[in-house]
This record gives sequence, C-alpha cells and structure tokens, in this order.
Amino acid sequence: MIRTIEWTDNGVVMLDQRLLPIEEIYRTYTNHNEVAEAIRSMVIRGAPAIGVAAAMGIALGIKISSAVNLADLDSSFEKICSDIAATRPTAVNLFWAVERMKKVYNQKRSQGMAAIRAALIDESTAMHSEDVEANRRMGQFGQTLIPAEARILTHCNAGALATAGYGTALGVIRAAVEAGKKIEVFADETRPFLQGARLTAWELQKDNIPVTIITDNMAGHFMKMGKIDYVIVGADRIAANGDVANKIGTYSVAVLAKENGVPFFVAAPVSTLDLTLPDGSHIPIEERDADEVRKIMGVAITPPGARVANPAFDVTPSRYVDAIITDRGIARSPFQESLRKLVSCGE
Amino acid sequence: MIRTIEWTDNGVVMLDQRLLPIEEIYRTYTNHNEVAEAIRSMVIRGAPAIGVAAAMGIALGIKISSAVNLADLDSSFEKICSDIAATRPTAVNLFWAVERMKKVYNQKRSQGMAAIRAALIDESTAMHSEDVEANRRMGQFGQTLIPAEARILTHCNAGALATAGYGTALGVIRAAVEAGKKIEVFADETRPFLQGARLTAWELQKDNIPVTIITDNMAGHFMKMGKIDYVIVGADRIAANGDVANKIGTYSVAVLAKENGVPFFVAAPVSTLDLTLPDGSHIPIEERDADEVRKIMGVAITPPGARVANPAFDVTPSRYVDAIITDRGIARSPFQESLRKLVSCGE
Repeated sequence: MIRTIEWTDNGVVMLDQRLLPIEEIYRTYTNHNEVAEAIRSMVIRGAPAIGVAAAMGIALGIKISSAVNLADLDSSFEKICSDIAATRPTAVNLFWAVERMKKVYNQKRSQGMAAIRAALIDESTAMHSEDVEANRRMGQFGQTLIPAEARILTHCNAGALATAGYGTALGVIRAAVEAGKKIEVFADETRPFLQGARLTAWELQKDNIPVTIITDNMAGHFMKMGKIDYVIVGADRIAANGDVANKIGTYSVAVLAKENGVPFFVAAPVSTLDLTLPDGSHIPIEERDADEVRKIMGVAITPPGARVANPAFDVTPSRYVDAIITDRGIARSPFQESLRKLVSCGE
Repeated sequence: MIRTIEWTDNGVVMLDQRLLPIEEIYRTYTNHNEVAEAIRSMVIRGAPAIGVAAAMGIALGIKISSAVNLADLDSSFEKICSDIAATRPTAVNLFWAVERMKKVYNQKRSQGMAAIRAALIDESTAMHSEDVEANRRMGQFGQTLIPAEARILTHCNAGALATAGYGTALGVIRAAVEAGKKIEVFADETRPFLQGARLTAWELQKDNIPVTIITDNMAGHFMKMGKIDYVIVGADRIAANGDVANKIGTYSVAVLAKENGVPFFVAAPVSTLDLTLPDGSHIPIEERDADEVRKIMGVAITPPGARVANPAFDVTPSRYVDAIITDRGIARSPFQESLRKLVSCGE
C-alpha cells in the first residue's frame, strides 16, 4: 500500500514525489503554508491527491491557529483557504475540497472553536478514505470495459500517487488485474515532470503489473504498429460537455488514439467534474516555471536562458473521448446529459 | 558557420553533438573504426551528415591502410565499407554514400593505390560541399512555400548539425529568414536524445532566429491553440510512395498537423530517397539502447532496470505529407510519380 498522504498528530505527512523513484522520502508538514508550498512545488500532485492535501492543509492551519476568539478564527480560516486555493489553478478538486471545508466550518461555527477544529480534521480524513473508496468503485466500473487480455497506454500518473490511494486510471488497471485479466501497460514518460517514467513505472512495478516506459513521442508509433489496445488517463477538470483538462500531452494521445481506432477512456471521480463550465475553453491552464523544461533532475538540457513554453495541461475535446469512468458509473456521449445524470443521481 | 564535420590531414574532425549545448568539443578521428563508433554513438547524426561521415570514414580507412598491394587493398576496402555500413540501419544516406565510394573505388582501381586513395578523399570532400549546395537549393525551393510571417514547428534537428551545413528543414527556415520573412520556430525537445532542445535551439540561437523549446507532448496543444502555421521536418529515408522515416515522434506530429489543418512539409535531398522500397513498411527501424530512455545526460529517471522501448524512428504515411522539398524541386501527391520524376530529371 502506497502512502501518498496521511494525517498524523505531528502534521500532514507526504511522500515527496519529486524524488521518486530514486529516493522514497516522507516529509511532515506542520503548517498550512508548508502544505501550500508542497502542492505548488509538486511534492504531491494529481487532482484527487491535491484535493485531499488542500483539505488537510486547511484542517492543519485551523488546528494550530493562535486565534483566541471566533472572529480571529474566521479571518484566519479565510486566509488559509485563499492561500491553499492559490496554489494551482487547473485541478478543480482543489476548489471542490476548499468548498467542502468551508461548508463544514460554517455548519460547525455555532458550536465553537474546538468543535470546528475537530470537524475540519474529521472532514479531511473522511475525504481521504472516500477518495480511496471512490477509486475502488471506479476501478470496478472501468474494468468491465477491458477484455481478458489488453495492452493499455496511460499518460502521466493517475495512480495511487495521484490520489489518496489505488488510483483513477491505474485503479481501473488494478481492478482489471484483480479480476484476473492479463494487462500490459505502456507508460508515456510525461515530460517535463516525468510522472510516467518516475511514478507510474514505480507504482506498477510495486504491484508486479508489467510496464514498459516509452517517451511521449513514441505513443503514436506504437498505436500505429497495433501494439496498444486501449488508452486510459486521469483528469484534472472535466467541463459539462465532457471536454477533459489533463496533463499536457493528453490531447495528442487522444487524437492519435482516434486516428488509430484505439478506444480512449478517462477515469475520474465526480469531484473532478466542473459542470459550471460549459466547455473546456473555460478551464484555466497553468503555465509552470521554464526551468522544468530547461532542466531534468537539475541537469541543464537547453542552451542557457533558452526560451521555452511550459503549459502543464491541455484540453481534450469530448469528441475524442469514448467513455468517462466515474465512481458513480460510466458516462458516454452525449456527455452533457450523461455527466449531469451521474452528478444528480448521487445527490 | 557551424563546422559539423571536416576532412583534415590529421583525420576526420567532428563536433561532438552528445555534449551540446553545454560543451562545444571537436574531436579528431584517426581511423575508420573510430568514425564508425562516432556514427553509432551519435557524436554525429542526421541522415545527410551520416552520409558524409561514412564517406570520410572510408576515405580515411583507405588512406591509412597498410595494404601493400591491390588485392590487400580490395579486401581492406570491403571490410571498411561493411564496418561503416553496419553502424546504423535507417538513414539511407549511409548506404548511398558507401555505394558512391564503391563506384569511385572501382573506377580508379586500374590506376593503382595512390590514385584510389586520392580519389576517395576527393569524393568524400565533394560529397561534403555538394551537401551544403543541395541544402541551399532546397532552402530556396522550400522558402517559396512560406509566407512573409510564419510560426514553424520542427521536430528533432534537421539543421547544419544534421548535414554538412545549412540544414534541410532548418535550411528552409534559414532561406525564408534570408528572404526577409519573419519566422518564429517552435522546437520539439525530441526525447530521448533531445536533438531539439540541445541542437536545434543551439544553432538557431547562433543565427538569431527566435526559437521556443517545447516538450514533445506540447506540439498538439500549440497546434490546437492556433499557434503553429507550418510543420517542417527532415527525413532519414523516403520510400517510393512518399512514406517518410524520420526521428521518432514525427508520425505523431504529422497526425496532429493534419487534424489541425497545419501543412506538413518534409525537406530532404534526393540522396534520402529510396525508390527501391515500395512503401515505408520496408524501412528498417533502429532500436537503440534502453539507457537512452532510462537516463537523461547520465541521470537516471526511471526505476532501476525498468523495461523501456526505444525505437529511434517512425514512419509517417505519405497521406499526412503535404510536400516533400528536395534539392531538385518540390514533390507533391501522388508521390510515386513526382518523386520518380525528380530523381530521373537529375540523371
């Protein structure tokens, strides 16, 4: 069992994903600013994991707040929420988590500071276990789409490390393996942060699921050669029409999959749906530091000061998406309808 | 002027492309085995440059051969040619160069060893200057396809470093700039060897041509955002029907270009045409060492011993190619006909 993030009495403990697979280092964060910085610098990443980290960061901030009265705590809470919300713009799970924490705060406010503190901690740890359960349900739904033998390409890391545990896209793969299916995974290395080469390969090796790492520019070649049967990826935000924001390169993989007749599936919990946005053009795309492209593991690979672009995500139009696998079932085109139905049936 | 490869009295001098852009080191190779190893280990790469290196390696081998009679020289020549031909399988320019050297050898054989040695040196240096001239002609033909302002994506390095000078795809870009056009280049970094991030960026910076480096998986995103007007790439081998073998990832770029209505051009001298092959399925694709994917500039990025794939090239079917720019003119679909015409008109 991979421990991506945990609430402890000493603070929020995270596995530092910047150092994997070379080093397996757990760090303890003791205030909400440290948690915010961990999210920003990608110690933890992956939309569902960011959501849990955000919730725990807020619970931690309020737990150690020096506020002596409710008015102080109110303003402390507001500041903490806005610090956490400012870390990364694309994954909607972050804002969803902040909203959930605000709701709890407001519900408990009349019961006093101790009750608020306890409730926020409970809520954040509940979100942790709910996420694992959601991933297991998603895995069950998703694995029904996979035959007895399949070669599956995945992009980035949508695994245990991107969630509270088990994973979204890798959760579907794990569930297929647990159902006795013979699965072989191709993992795009996923520049610039190398989530595929570093994280997906690492966690699938731990589970003895066969995985072959390829560079991002090889995916099309292997599809054309008939070596890939399915593509499954995660998501950072899904608009009402089914457009999917996910790690940069997902759009390319989706176009290549369609061109080669390879089904393209997205696995994401309903907390990743943002039905307030009509389509993907409204999803903010984070531009990250140029040095992530200029250097790999600290080693320069470009001329000094070279101009680079570094959008961290792209948007895949829903016409390339064959199915969106959620923890409440599988949505298919027309997504406008199917996604709304999935959301409302859980309420 | 970038000195990719040069014939000198001391041996064949090459700029070590494995170390760029961090270090600019020129190495002198003093026998054909060293030249073969330089080709194999990618001190020099790019189909036209490999052709010139092969020719110079053969000339060098014969120059220093200890053969005391013609029969000895014959067997020495055969061995040298087969050592050079065994270095890399995909770029046809290598075999084209070997064949040219064999023809010269046979033509001069009756004139004795000194005449053979001199003729082989002359032939290899002639191939060097012919390549530069071919690139300049290609540039002139190609730049007519580019409007007064354009944002051009290129993959890998098809520049001065991939040729004897000036470049194929980058030659077209240089010619457009020289014609007063306002060109902005996007360079795919081109994992695993990073020819785009390391070499294309380096040589365009030297010429003050604006270049933005992107990771391979960003190309589709920028095309979808309307930020790319044209794609121009080089080639390692082009079959009779116009199918193009080029650096891994070219196929993906071509599919994404078609999907987004971006014209896709290939620039290559006629020495890159292999009309003996009916289509691209017959082109041998080199599989290179796994450590090229597992490590970047010597730094491990995957779990130790991770399974990886490393095909160095892919084949882009000609239906994705809008034009093939050669040193004898521009070929368009149907390529079967247009390519044959270009080859025969030069003979």
